Formats: sequence, C-alpha cells, structure tokens
Amino acid sequence: MSNLITYGAPTPDLSRLDRFLAVRALTERLAAPLSPEDQTVQSMPDASPAKWHLAHTTWFFETFVLRTHSPSYRAFDPAYEYLFNSYYEAVGPRHPRPQRGMITRPGVEEILAYRRQVTEAMVGLIDRGNDQCAALVELGLHHEQQHQELLLMDIKHLLSLNPLKPVYAPRRDGGDDETPGGPLSWVEFDSGLTSIGHDSKDFAFDNEGPRHRVWIEPFTLATRLVTCAEYAAFIEEDGYRRPEFWLSAGWDCASQRGWEAPLYWQRDGGRWSVFTLGGLQPLRDDEPVCHVSGYEAAAFAKWAGKRLPRESEWEVAAADVPLTGNMLDSGRLHPAPASGRGLRQMIGDVWEWTASPYVAYPGYREPPGAIGEYNGKFMANQMVLRGGCAATPADHIRTTYRNFFPLDARWMFGGIRLAEDLR
Amino acid sequence: MSNLITYGAPTPDLSRLDRFLAVRALTERLAAPLSPEDQTVQSMPDASPAKWHLAHTTWFFETFVLRTHSPSYRAFDPAYEYLFNSYYEAVGPRHPRPQRGMITRPGVEEILAYRRQVTEAMVGLIDRGNDQCAALVELGLHHEQQHQELLLMDIKHLLSLNPLKPVYAPRRDGGDDETPGGPLSWVEFDSGLTSIGHDSKDFAFDNEGPRHRVWIEPFTLATRLVTCAEYAAFIEEDGYRRPEFWLSAGWDCASQRGWEAPLYWQRDGGRWSVFTLGGLQPLRDDEPVCHVSGYEAAAFAKWAGKRLPRESEWEVAAADVPLTGNMLDSGRLHPAPASGRGLRQMIGDVWEWTASPYVAYPGYREPPGAIGEYNGKFMANQMVLRGGCAATPADHIRTTYRNFFPLDARWMFGGIRLAEDLR
Amino acid sequence: MSNLITYGAPTPDLSRLDRFLAVRALTERLAAPLSPEDQTVQSMPDASPAKWHLAHTTWFFETFVLRTHSPSYRAFDPAYEYLFNSYYEAVGPRHPRPQRGMITRPGVEEILAYRRQVTEAMVGLIDRGNDQCAALVELGLHHEQQHQELLLMDIKHLLSLNPLKPVYAPRRDGGDDETPGGPLSWVEFDSGLTSIGHDSKDFAFDNEGPRHRVWIEPFTLATRLVTCAEYAAFIEEDGYRRPEFWLSAGWDCASQRGWEAPLYWQRDGGRWSVFTLGGLQPLRDDEPVCHVSGYEAAAFAKWAGKRLPRESEWEVAAADVPLTGNMLDSGRLHPAPASGRGLRQMIGDVWEWTASPYVAYPGYREPPGAIGEYNGKFMANQMVLRGGCAATPADHIRTTYRNFFPLDARWMFGGIRLAEDLR
Amino acid sequence: MSNLITYGAPTPDLSRLDRFLAVRALTERLAAPLSPEDQTVQSMPDASPAKWHLAHTTWFFETFVLRTHSPSYRAFDPAYEYLFNSYYEAVGPRHPRPQRGMITRPGVEEILAYRRQVTEAMVGLIDRGNDQCAALVELGLHHEQQHQELLLMDIKHLLSLNPLKPVYAPRRDGGDDETPGGPLSWVEFDSGLTSIGHDSKDFAFDNEGPRHRVWIEPFTLATRLVTCAEYAAFIEEDGYRRPEFWLSAGWDCASQRGWEAPLYWQRDGGRWSVFTLGGLQPLRDDEPVCHVSGYEAAAFAKWAGKRLPRESEWEVAAADVPLTGNMLDSGRLHPAPASGRGLRQMIGDVWEWTASPYVAYPGYREPPGAIGEYNGKFMANQMVLRGGCAATPADHIRTTYRNFFPLDARWMFGGIRLAEDLR
Repeated sequence: MSNLITYGAPTPDLSRLDRFLAVRALTERLAAPLSPEDQTVQSMPDASPAKWHLAHTTWFFETFVLRTHSPSYRAFDPAYEYLFNSYYEAVGPRHPRPQRGMITRPGVEEILAYRRQVTEAMVGLIDRGNDQCAALVELGLHHEQQHQELLLMDIKHLLSLNPLKPVYAPRRDGGDDETPGGPLSWVEFDSGLTSIGHDSKDFAFDNEGPRHRVWIEPFTLATRLVTCAEYAAFIEEDGYRRPEFWLSAGWDCASQRGWEAPLYWQRDGGRWSVFTLGGLQPLRDDEPVCHVSGYEAAAFAKWAGKRLPRESEWEVAAADVPLTGNMLDSGRLHPAPASGRGLRQMIGDVWEWTASPYVAYPGYREPPGAIGEYNGKFMANQMVLRGGCAATPADHIRTTYRNFFPLDARWMFGGIRLAEDLR
Repeated sequence: MSNLITYGAPTPDLSRLDRFLAVRALTERLAAPLSPEDQTVQSMPDASPAKWHLAHTTWFFETFVLRTHSPSYRAFDPAYEYLFNSYYEAVGPRHPRPQRGMITRPGVEEILAYRRQVTEAMVGLIDRGNDQCAALVELGLHHEQQHQELLLMDIKHLLSLNPLKPVYAPRRDGGDDETPGGPLSWVEFDSGLTSIGHDSKDFAFDNEGPRHRVWIEPFTLATRLVTCAEYAAFIEEDGYRRPEFWLSAGWDCASQRGWEAPLYWQRDGGRWSVFTLGGLQPLRDDEPVCHVSGYEAAAFAKWAGKRLPRESEWEVAAADVPLTGNMLDSGRLHPAPASGRGLRQMIGDVWEWTASPYVAYPGYREPPGAIGEYNGKFMANQMVLRGGCAATPADHIRTTYRNFFPLDARWMFGGIRLAEDLR
Repeated sequence: MSNLITYGAPTPDLSRLDRFLAVRALTERLAAPLSPEDQTVQSMPDASPAKWHLAHTTWFFETFVLRTHSPSYRAFDPAYEYLFNSYYEAVGPRHPRPQRGMITRPGVEEILAYRRQVTEAMVGLIDRGNDQCAALVELGLHHEQQHQELLLMDIKHLLSLNPLKPVYAPRRDGGDDETPGGPLSWVEFDSGLTSIGHDSKDFAFDNEGPRHRVWIEPFTLATRLVTCAEYAAFIEEDGYRRPEFWLSAGWDCASQRGWEAPLYWQRDGGRWSVFTLGGLQPLRDDEPVCHVSGYEAAAFAKWAGKRLPRESEWEVAAADVPLTGNMLDSGRLHPAPASGRGLRQMIGDVWEWTASPYVAYPGYREPPGAIGEYNGKFMANQMVLRGGCAATPADHIRTTYRNFFPLDARWMFGGIRLAEDLR
Repeated sequence: MSNLITYGAPTPDLSRLDRFLAVRALTERLAAPLSPEDQTVQSMPDASPAKWHLAHTTWFFETFVLRTHSPSYRAFDPAYEYLFNSYYEAVGPRHPRPQRGMITRPGVEEILAYRRQVTEAMVGLIDRGNDQCAALVELGLHHEQQHQELLLMDIKHLLSLNPLKPVYAPRRDGGDDETPGGPLSWVEFDSGLTSIGHDSKDFAFDNEGPRHRVWIEPFTLATRLVTCAEYAAFIEEDGYRRPEFWLSAGWDCASQRGWEAPLYWQRDGGRWSVFTLGGLQPLRDDEPVCHVSGYEAAAFAKWAGKRLPRESEWEVAAADVPLTGNMLDSGRLHPAPASGRGLRQMIGDVWEWTASPYVAYPGYREPPGAIGEYNGKFMANQMVLRGGCAATPADHIRTTYRNFFPLDARWMFGGIRLAEDLR
C-alpha cells in the first residue's frame, strides 16, 4: 500500500491550522508520483505544468497574505512574483500563459523549498491568529484545491499524449458493492418561484451569490448520469456525422478537430479503450461518459430527444442531496457506475454540463482589489458545470458551486445528465 | 432627388401581395447604388456579397415555398440550390461561406433575372391564396428584411476597406429639429414576477417565444444611448489600455486585433472621423456610439461604473415604448442624436448590447424540418442585442425581437445603453 | 469567329509605336470576355484581380515614364499611385497585396478610361521620340506582357473555384495535324565550359545577365515534356502516398494541402477531367501535364528514376531551338501534345521546372532606382522555370528568360521535362 | 575546476573504439549540467529536448547497426523505435516532431540506461571488428556529433526563454592573448576553372560530393567575420527599417516577427546585452555577430555595399586554411574576436551564411536505403553555411562540409563574412 496516494478524507472539524496543513500536504502528495520531467511540461496552452501549480498556489499565499500581513516576511525569490502570477493584472506583469512550460528552472526541488518556506511562514501567521486575513487564507485554500483538480486534469492530458500511455496511479475500482444503476429513470420538479445561490456564512466563491429569486418551469431530471454505453450508441448511430443534432459552432468545431468520440477514447479493433489516470483501460459500459465537450453534451441530448438542465434546475434538484460521492478522496480518480436508488451521482464523478452560460447573478459585484479578478472577468463564452468530479477534493464542493468552461473544452472531467420540460 | 433611394415607409394595412412586392422591391433598391463590382466582393468570412444576398433571399422562396407548393414551378438553375444555400444542412450540401466571394458568375444581371422569375411565380402563388404556405411566405419576407440590413452592414464594411472611402448614399441629416438630449438621466423599474417573450398571433421568430415568467430585480435604465462624446472620454482615459475594465477574453481580443476605438473611427490629426454609408464624416459628439463589440460595450459600462441591461430588463422597459425611431425608412442610415424626453432611442439607431447570452427560452422547441435550423443552432457563444438600428426596416422590429452576435462582432450597428442595480 | 479573341501574332518589324499599341490592346482583349464581376475578385493572396492587372500595367507607364518624362502630364487620379503600386517600396506606400480584391471602386469602366488617358499620353511621348525613356517603355511593355500571362493564370484560378466551371474562351484544338509524339526519347549533351545568360543589345530582364561561364557535366534531356498519361501512372503507383519520392518539405506540403493530383484535375468516376480556360474537359493522355508544383515535378522525376534539368543545361540545349511553339497567339490557351521530331516543346506549352534555385548570376547588379526592385529582391526560396507557356505572348520569350516561382506554386502553367546524368 | 565540462580535444590517431567511446561520452558530458527538467522541454518545433538528442543518437546505432549486424542484440524497448525516429520514413512511422517535448517518460535516467546498453553492445560489435558496418558506425558518430551541436543550440534557445536567464556553463574567455583584429581587410582570388567537393577516402557526408568542376569569377573575401560593432552600426542606421536592403521575403519575415536585432540581443538602457550559454553578458564590440538569419546576413551585406560569398568561393578560399579555430573543445561556447593576420576565423566561431542555395552537386546520388534520407530530401528552400562554429566538435569539420538552414533560422550559431566581385 505504500505506493498508493492517500488523497485525504475531509474532516470538517479540523482546526484552521490543521486544514491549512492538510490542503498543502495533499498538493504535494498529488505531485509525488510524477518525475521532475512529468512536472515540467505544458501539454497545451490551456494546461499548466504540475510544478507550476505547486508554485502558483504558493505564490497566492505569498502575494496576497504574507506580503501584506506579515511585515517581516522576505520573498523567497523576487522573480517568482512575475513567474507564477496566473492572470492578476493588478499585481503586475506576468509570464505569458502559453510559455509556462518553458520555465525549466526553478526545478522541482527549488519549488518544493519555496513551498516549505511559505507554508512555514503561513503557519506562523495562522498561529498568531491574525483575523484580518482569515478570509484570504480560506480563499487561498479553496484556490489550492481548485489547482489540485487542475493538476490532475493537466497531468492526465500530458500523459495521454505519450504513446507509452503511462500510469499515474494504479486504478482502484470500487469492488463488488457496485451494482449497475439499471435503466434511466426520472424525477419530476414543479414550477414555482424559488431562490438559488449561496447565502450562508460559510465560504463560497463570489460568483455563487448573491442568493436571488428565479422562476422555475416544471421539469424532470434523469436520476443518473449518461453512461458510456449510451454514449457509444450515439456514436454508432452516426451522432458525429449528423449535423441536425449539433449546435452550428459545435459542428464546425467537431469537424475541424476531427472529433469522433470523447477525448481519451480510442478504438482498438472493435472495442473501445479509454485512457485514465490508471493507464489505458477497456471501456466499461456502465461508467458515466466523461471528457466530452459542451458541444458533444448538447448533441447527445438532442439525439436523445432531451436537453441539458439549466443551472437553476440543477441547484433546485440538488438542494436535498447529501454532499457525498465519488470524489478525490475515493482514490478512484475516475467516474464510477451509478449505484443505489433515487437521484444519484449529483455530487462527484463528473462535472455536469448545464444549458446555462456563465454570467453574473443579479446583484453580483466583484470584490475590490486583485482578488476581484478571481471570477468576474471570465464571464464570457463559458458554460456552467455543476457538482464536482472524481478529481475534486471532497470538502471543496457545494451545491451552489459554479464551475465554468468554454463549450469546446474536454480535458476536465465533464459529463452529461439529461433533463426535459414537463408540460 | 432622383438619386436618393426611397427606403419605403411601412404601411401596416398592405395586402399580403403588396407587402410581398414592397419587400422584394426594397431589396433591389438597396442594391441599386452598387456597381456589379461592389455587389460581388466578400470583405470577410462573416460578410456576404450584395448579390449573394439578392440571390439567397430568392433561393429561400424558391426552396421552401415554390418547390413544395407550386408543382409546375421549374427551377431557374438547379445549381443555385447549392450556390445560394446559406446554412440549411437539411436542404443538402452548400457552397462554403468563406467562398461566397469567389462566385463571379452568375453576375448581377442573371441574379436580377432570377429574382424576377421567382417573384413572378410567388405572385401567382399568393394570388391563388394558398393558405398552407402563408406562414412560410411571411417567414420569407422577414428573412429578406434581415438580409436587407445585412446587405447594408456588409457593403459598409467592404467600402470602408477602400482607401477612397466611397459614398454609398449621400448623408441625410435630420435637420434643425434635432436638439441634443442633454445629460444622462435614468428611469427606475421595480422588482417583480413578470413575463417576457412573444405570444400574439402576429409574426415573430421562433426564438422570441414562448412567453414565460421571469423575476426581475429592481433596476434603472438610462433614458438614452451612450454618445460618441462619452465613448471618446473612455478612450481618452486610456480605456483601451486598462485591463481592469475588460472581460479577460475581451482584453485578449482587443490586444490581438489592435483595437483602439470603435470600428470605422479614425483619428485625423487631433479629431475623430467616422466612416459611414455617406462616406467619411467628422464625428458628431451627440450621436450614439456605434460599431462597438460586446467586449467594448462591457468595458465601457464598467469604466462608467454601470452595467449593461439584461434582455428581460430591456423588454420590460420597452413594453410601453412606441415602435418608432430612426430606422431604415428614415434614409439616414446612421444613428441620430437623442431628442425629446423620457425613455428614448429604444427602437432604431443602434442594436443595444445586453448582458444576456443568447439561449433558448424555457419551453422553446425548434420547428420541424429545415426551417428548424433558423435560430436554435446558433445558441452558443452569442449575446442578445435588442431594439433594431438605423439599417433595420421599420416594420421588421418588435420589442420581443432577439438579435444575436458574438462578443467580438463590430460590423453590425451595435451600441450601448447603460443600466444599474437599484438597491 | 467574331466572339473569338485574337491574341495577336508577333511581328518583329513593328514600329515602336505600333508595338506599344499592340501590347496595350491585347491586354484589353484578354479582359474583354470577363464581366466586371469576374475582373474584380482576387481568388487568393498570390493572385490579383483582372482589373488590377489592367490598372497596374498602366500605373507602371504613368509612374516611371510619364511622371518623369512628360512634365505636362497630369495624373488621372492621385490615389492610383497608392492603389496600383505592386511592390515598389521606393515609390512609396502601397495597398497591401492580399487586399487588392477589396477595391471595387474604381470599377472596370474607370480603369479603362485610365488606360485610355495613359495610352494617349504615351503615344504623344513616343511620337516625340524621346530616346531617354525608350528603354523604360520597352521594360513597361515586357512588364505588361508578363501581366497578360498573370491575368490568364489568375482568372483561370478564380473561375476554377466556381462550381459552375465557367468557360473563359471556347477551346481551340490544334486539329488533324497533331500526331502524338510517341515514346520518350533523349538527346545527349557533352561536358564542357560554356557560357549562359543574355548579352545581345536586344531587350532582356536584368536577371538574365551578365553572360558568364559555366562548366557543364554530360547529360541527356528528354525530347518532349512529361504527358498526362505518364503523370497519371505516377498517381496510380501511389506517387502521392510514398514519401521516398518527395523532398521533405514537399511531402509536408502535399500532405497538409491534401494534394492527390495536379491542380485543376478532378476525378469524375473512373476518369480524369481537367479544368481549362475552355471549361472542364476530359483529360487528354498525350497532352503535357500542367499545373504541377516544383515539389510534384521533383517527386515525379525521382519516381521515374530521372531528375529535373539545371537551368544551365536547359539553356545550353535550347540554344539552337527556334523561338516558336504553342504560345498565347495560338489561342489554344492550353498545352498541346508533342508533334514532330527531335527536341520539341522547349518554347511554349508549359514553363519547365528546373533544379536550379533562382539566384543572381555572377556579376549581377541591380539597376539603380525603383526599377532595381524588379527582380533581385525576389531571389529567395524560388526555383527557375524556363521556356514560356501557352499563355505567354509569343514575342515575350527568350532562351535566356528566367521565370521563377516558389516550389509550392501550382497556378502558373508549370510542367516537367526530364533529364539524366550521362556517365 | 571540477564543475567545468571538458569538451574533449580531437586526437586523430584514436582507435575506432576509443573514438566511439569518446564521442558517446562527450554527449553525456554536454547534458550533465542540465537538470531532468531542462532536458525534457522542447522550446519550439525546430528544436528538440536534450534527452531526445541523447536517445535519438542511440536509436541511430540501435536501428542501423545493431539490429542488422548484431543478431543476438535485443532492443532496449521496442517503443523507442517509434519514439526516437527523427525523419526516416523507410524505418517506419515516427513520433511527430513538434510533439517531442510531450514525452516526459522515459525519463533522463532510463535514457541514460538505454545509452549504456547500446554503447556496450556497440563496443562488443566494434571489438569483433565487423568491417561491414564500419562505415555505418562512422556515420553514426558524425551523426552524434551533429546532435552535440544541436543539443547546445536547442538548450541555448530554451534557457533564453527563461526570464531568469540561466547559465549553462560559466563563460570562459580567451584571456590576454586576444588582440582585436583591426580594420577589415580583403584577400583577392583569381578567376578560373577549379574543383570543389569531397573526394578523399576519409569520411564525408554524401552531400559533400562528388568533387566536380566549377568556374570561378574573380572575387575578394573579407579576412575576418563581421563584428558586433559593425552589425550594431547597421541597426543604428535603421537597417531593420529600410526595405531597400532586404530580400522581399526577408522584409516580410522581419516585419512579421518584429525583428530589430539578432536573436539573443537585448537592449538594456543604452547598451546591448547578449544571452550566451554563460548567461546574459554585455555585448563585446569585437566579437563576431552571431545568431542572425540568412535574411539579416543578406541585408547587412547589401547595406555594406558587398555581398555574401558563394559556397564555391568559400571552399576555394578555405583550401589552404588549417582546420583549427574556436570550436567546441575550446569550451568557450561563443564566437571569439579575430586575432592574428591573414584569412582568419574560417573554421569555427560561426557558421558563415553563403549566397548558395543547398542543392545537389552534379552527379550526386543518394545512398540506397534509409540512410539515403540523410541529406538529399532536405534540398529545398535552404542555404548553405560553411566552416563550423564555437559549438561544433573540432574533429567534425571539413572545408567541404555543407551545413544548411532555411533563410529565417536564427537559433544556430550563424554569422557573416563579406565578399565582393573583382572586376
């Protein structure tokens, strides 16, 4: 068992300090199976090198917390301010994103030393109980958890480009207790005026609020995710060759990029295999389809005679769902077949594409300062995805959580749940 | 006066036949000032040659009406079915859009003959009172009116690329009765559950319905459009060089394309000039700013400390506004300064960028058949614009009308009206 | 016969004035079958609109002759200096080449008027016998003859993009006197020190001189051009799918552009057709293959176990060949099968790709002034082609003539003659 | 001194086995200062990761020698045949060049193990004195030496992209014995029929032969290379802004890429610095200019009123020059100022751009088999460079050696020597 990563189960009653240390340590455990070579390369402009994630999450604490609230703190290396800024224009100039993979130095060892210095300084600060920056520390931890998932997405993409199809971590299946979810069934929801969005005192990102009223028309929601077998039927029925199912931009995108199946699927003779963080695996029929773009999700739904849920519908349906599921702490690192009864797989497994573009909620205001760049400026040409995935830290998800990606993105763990109007 | 185009005032009580003939004739009048050379060239992939518009609007009637409902009709040229199909996959293969400008033959004369044959056949059909296709004819006329506006947008773009800055039609100003609208004022709107969308028996595009309930938070709306003087102040205050005002994708877009002002603005010494369908003109301070992208509209609004209205807000505000304004029939072909009092310029002048992505209304279903491709498949990565512009035929607008363009589009007549949350 | 173009047979004893008028008139006859629409469009960045050729050849006389040597001459339109400059940096700024197709105004009629004014002014100048500029006029006429061929190449490319496959001029075949040339035979040439390049007092372009010594190794040259049947055999033997025949850059180019046959060939069922200036025609086996790139020419030669000739070899072989062949004046506008005996088709039919990059001859110096930009600055990444083609004016060719194109160019009339080392 | 690389002085009397071991060991010493991170990244499509060079040079011996001539040899990993094939189509499919940087596994350690296995197997083979493959082994060693230089070029490019400007190896200067070469002087050469090309029994690449006669016109050659001070004067006189000096394609290239100085030059305030393998250094006036493209070399020569030498001229001039100079074994890794008298710097310092396109010599035939792909298929759109550079192994150069790069390449050590016609 010593070569298995422990991904850390969330314990809500951790002290602030312990939680800080747990999040920091998990990032390093996620990078541990990767060689310095693996941690250095950027596989595409949208992805970042693993060691960049290690450094950037550290830069966040150094820049936004230590520099302001810890007067005696001395920067590890002044050049890092430039090198590891992601997109905060207010902080100053930054290294261009598509060039992140060119930064072979500092190497992994130096970045781990950087992490140690910042973690130690942060421990001192948290010990001193500086309440002023507690919110910033909390934000920094959620930021780091986002990058934990990004690190896994990015490294999966990189390894997939290697003809040797390397294994990041041996696959862990759920074992005998998994029984396929059976045929698709539906839950109905009534119309009415309701509210969505975050409003408690617990942490949430700015884009989850303010809580506000929305009118919901009656709808039904599938009780489980679309499976690989169902998606394969779409492929068999020429789903990728029939424009009538596709958004016009989706049709162009799929044609230009030669898409014929989800990302990471490959046909070996008459059978499908799928590249996973556990290496190349035979496709399992009852697993949720994953790594589809929003265009493919929409085309599948139209082929199926259904539609994607709106984010308000999803949130209404999720209101009573427990915050548990197949997430990072399961160590599976891959979506799992549905099991049990009722509305399942809402949390974990795959991020569920919605029909809702990512826009500000009524009354939304960006926070002041550099932190204001966190979410608002990305509200263009992206769609909302909901529910977390098998690579999301378990204590990082909320039913109000709004993830967002462009319609053509496939490298995150994105999947499909169907919905339909009720008349 | 003989060299002036008459753009046709709408008379709501026209017979169906007279309305058909009036729309067809106006298209030809709009092309009349253009040489065969002008009518042939495609200035960019998004634009089409003027003679393509003449042919495609005719193809629509031939393909969707005559072929089905007029058994004795013989196609003008079977090749046209391929050449002048815009994007209807269900009709069959089509000439690639970016290649429309390569089709020098058929020439303008042949296309006018094509128009005459189809118009005559349609007159026979309408005379016979075929009720089955009355809805299709109506759709065909609204389709042709859309292309009347596109023809003007496209020809403006083409002529703007000519260093000689040619005049499409001599500029007609409004004369002495125009008095500047004064400082910006605001109208307030209460919160509440209301309905938007089309529901009468009159014609509307499928995307305008179904009428459905929405909750509105309290807001205010500017009583007039943003002027060129106001937009010039944004430029003077380095609006194009300060990322804090911009959506991230907008900042990248503006940087890559080197935007420093609206499309068609050029600085001559210390003054701005603007290219219009009446040639190059000194910029007029009190005119609405026009030919800005959605990115620029959003950046301006943020600089101004306001925001863009949602489409539901705009529609609620427009409910009581008369359907009159500076539209194609004024012959001005350019937005005009605000005059009068109260909520002005809602109809005509410029299409107003909203903060609402273009998505299906709850309960929306695409019509069956090829006509179903009219709107639904474009619901991705576009924003809604409202209210019509100076190039829109006056009887073509409705307060429920949803125009849509990508955030980076600038060649349509797009402008800005500000809104703000009310607390 | 009245609808046939007369392409003008060269009469060497024409007076300077008559020759001037004959060249100018031929350009206009070449444009006559084209509508204003045809004359306006630019089909790709390498090509120019027909009316641009009409204007630019006129601009040459206006700019380099009239402006300097005719003090009373008044420019037709000062803007034309900018609009119709091709690449002469010394003359001042110019309209970007890829934007030539955007200039719908001036139209064809205005450009013909421009031609008339400049022609008349030139007639006056030539009448006055201004010897100072005789060389410039001569250069201007050869320049215009180059553009006559370019006009035909460019219009062929444009018309080929039209699915209607329009006819520029009805095809004229050579009739009964054409007998196929039989199997390929070879002429041998000895080694020795010889000279190539222009050195008489007759006109030649600067790049044809100075005449200089070269050492020639023994070689043989095919007595005729490679035929379509021979090239089809290369295709049948998977020539386009076997990298061993190709230059590395040629393989990449052909793969990326999806080349599977010469430009303008298309397979209709089991047979090849070829687009010509006379429309789409069945491919004729004994015609020379045409519209191949230098990459294809080199791959074919390697497949055939031969090589392309060097330009020095070609010129040595051509020394005793009469300057006659299938050129523009035949009106055929397409290469013709070989007939007769001995070394044939050296002049006319197709430009023959050589193995020689286009570089300066030893001792070459660019002429002073703007005219110096005529040739020298293009001596990079181009290959020499020799011998003229079916679209070359008959009095425009010389055995020292060096045409040049990049290896990937296919829209000129380029073909293949094989050579081989003799040991 | 222990942290200095020993680059190995050539000893011509080495046994074949010792030479084999020396070359192999030097490759590993060149990689030694690089971290696994440094060795993994590909900085641009033209470059390769350092560890790819280590593997590919090993693949060459495994594929072309061991697999054929050592029946008992078992491949280290069958996947490497695909992963580390550079461009040999005859060997089978290969990993796409621009994707070389994605192969993070095998890591540096595994590739060193691969090197050890192949080196050992080769030692056995050479010990057995297998004469059949002696020529292949020799080719393999020269191939590896080429990659030693490529490794240095590529790693220099990669490190230059790092804002930290890392040092590959501390700079070693020549010390006190270097005295600037003084003003430019010239050597004259007579016209005549002579021969160039390789013809001895010693190793040479196929493209260096056959030896053949060429006629040379009288010319002069500069006795030393163009210096940084001279090149800086070209920049000061607006060399990069005056099109009259440039080839047309060069002007477009420089404009599009924003070139304003040689690669690796940067202006720090009023002074130039230059990035070297020893880090960022102040520019030294008397050093040869380096990392210029062929376009810049040609533009500089034209500005200077001279021209670049033809490769035949260079070879004639180099005939009597000793094969010594500032090469890899000096450890300087950077061109050095001229010292001494007469014709200097012909060997080493910088590869000298010639005016000669890279084409086959008369009588050239590609060797049969995969080895035939070594040189011939690259004879398109490249220019010949002569004389070796500061990164070339000293026993790898010959006066007949023909290096070749496209005109726009700057990352190799390319510099300028002027020539002129003699009348």
